Amino acid sequence: MMSLANESIEERVIGYLGPRGTYSEEVALKLYKDMAGRFIFIPYTGIDNVIRAVDRGEIDECVVPVENSVEGSVNITLDSLAHEVNLVITKEMIQMVRHNLLIKNNTKKIDVIVSHPQALAQCRQYLARQFPEAQLKTVDSTAAAAYLVASGAENHAAIGSAQAGEIYGLKNYAADIQDHSGNCTRFIVLKKTPEISATKGDYKTSVICRINGKTPGSLCDILIEFAKRNVNLTKIESRPTRTNLGEYVFFFDIEGNLSDAKVHEAIAAVQLKSLWFKNLSSYPVCTI
Amino acid sequence: MMSLANESIEERVIGYLGPRGTYSEEVALKLYKDMAGRFIFIPYTGIDNVIRAVDRGEIDECVVPVENSVEGSVNITLDSLAHEVNLVITKEMIQMVRHNLLIKNNTKKIDVIVSHPQALAQCRQYLARQFPEAQLKTVDSTAAAAYLVASGAENHAAIGSAQAGEIYGLKNYAADIQDHSGNCTRFIVLKKTPEISATKGDYKTSVICRINGKTPGSLCDILIEFAKRNVNLTKIESRPTRTNLGEYVFFFDIEGNLSDAKVHEAIAAVQLKSLWFKNLSSYPVCTI
Repeated sequence: MMSLANESIEERVIGYLGPRGTYSEEVALKLYKDMAGRFIFIPYTGIDNVIRAVDRGEIDECVVPVENSVEGSVNITLDSLAHEVNLVITKEMIQMVRHNLLIKNNTKKIDVIVSHPQALAQCRQYLARQFPEAQLKTVDSTAAAAYLVASGAENHAAIGSAQAGEIYGLKNYAADIQDHSGNCTRFIVLKKTPEISATKGDYKTSVICRINGKTPGSLCDILIEFAKRNVNLTKIESRPTRTNLGEYVFFFDIEGNLSDAKVHEAIAAVQLKSLWFKNLSSYPVCTI
Repeated sequence: MMSLANESIEERVIGYLGPRGTYSEEVALKLYKDMAGRFIFIPYTGIDNVIRAVDRGEIDECVVPVENSVEGSVNITLDSLAHEVNLVITKEMIQMVRHNLLIKNNTKKIDVIVSHPQALAQCRQYLARQFPEAQLKTVDSTAAAAYLVASGAENHAAIGSAQAGEIYGLKNYAADIQDHSGNCTRFIVLKKTPEISATKGDYKTSVICRINGKTPGSLCDILIEFAKRNVNLTKIESRPTRTNLGEYVFFFDIEGNLSDAKVHEAIAAVQLKSLWFKNLSSYPVCTI
């Protein structure tokens, strides 16, 4: 009986933006900690690579960043969802970002600072003030930066989490170096098919559409479908269609669940008015 | 008389994202070529630095990129305009982007590829296909990348314009390596005060505002002011307010001139409905 029960436990493979020690890993570990089932976590290099791995069916789901409170949208996540893959969002969660400047134990002088471009951007003022002469070097993730510093020259420092510092044996030269307190990042879980959604708790629904931008008021025509049903949007983002300058796809994040009649009706109306439309599904907003 | 006439010629100092050989320099040189007056061109390191130099009155105006057809908005330009400086847009122009992979004459093997983050992003597929193992390194501009390669190790290559290659004595390893044909970038000229605007030719007007995002339909309420006057928007972009996640400022690019009654009225109505508002002025759309 015991063995049968064990065999029936669902096993899911979760990809995240690696290597070990990224904020994505921190979020992934927290998110699945209290869930039933067996989980295998696999780090990937590059946000686009982990998203494509889900699309190809190599892994079941992935955890990726989609927006930061200071730097805005993570464009590669949005562009992959719009142009490269057919996936849905099954969860959203928000993580506070606390950046540290990480160095080797014997570092005396910092000439090169390595991190993910968004992490460098989030500490731009600190870096300009404290290290105006340092060369900035970008890598695929904050943890990759920590790894690089741990295995590289002594005049290098990384920007990353305290956890990344611990994993790679680095010392905290300075903590909380982000320019804005309240710096946080929104992460999403992506899968091939939506999960059966409960109706309790906060839900969001995301869609992408392309409308005829040459007509005055065409975006207004779309927004009115939400407004007249009292459906709130938490975010609108435009990204290039990648064909001609001045043509965009719009990302709408909507408060509520597709099982709510007013959300369902608004989205159906928007789809009818769109030249191209993609439903990223409804998902719970998790607090961790 | 001759001497008097010469002295009365206006002298203007133009900043651009340097060093020599950037797309910004190419656009700046084209733009002022046929204009009356004496112009001094000064390269700056970093888009935020050249924008702030105009704001501080160190230079008269600057030429900076604001949007690319593939990668979308240049966030640092938008964020500087919203949060850091008080400037207006006096011109807009669009430049085709043709990236080249530039190497030293005696380069045998390419291990490191250097460029501006947007240029690397614009060639992502080419790089993944041709140089999957290469390390990508970012610098402040495509021309800085060319300079770095010219003065650095033989296993480095830069992504930049043919012109940058010529200036720094590099050889074209490959031409037109951007992933999307029709790749172009929109540049703007920034000044402290608007120029006296003619009414002929195509004009645009840009404003930034913050609205109460917590009310359903509040963005729709803004857009309706444009739609009901038949005023077309060419672009809407949202950027974080930098205070709380989920709060945004909106950038609107509007077809037409503030001297058009309908544009003027729409913008006055939008200002009334905004919590915070910034008018970036009207400017001609230049073709070069």
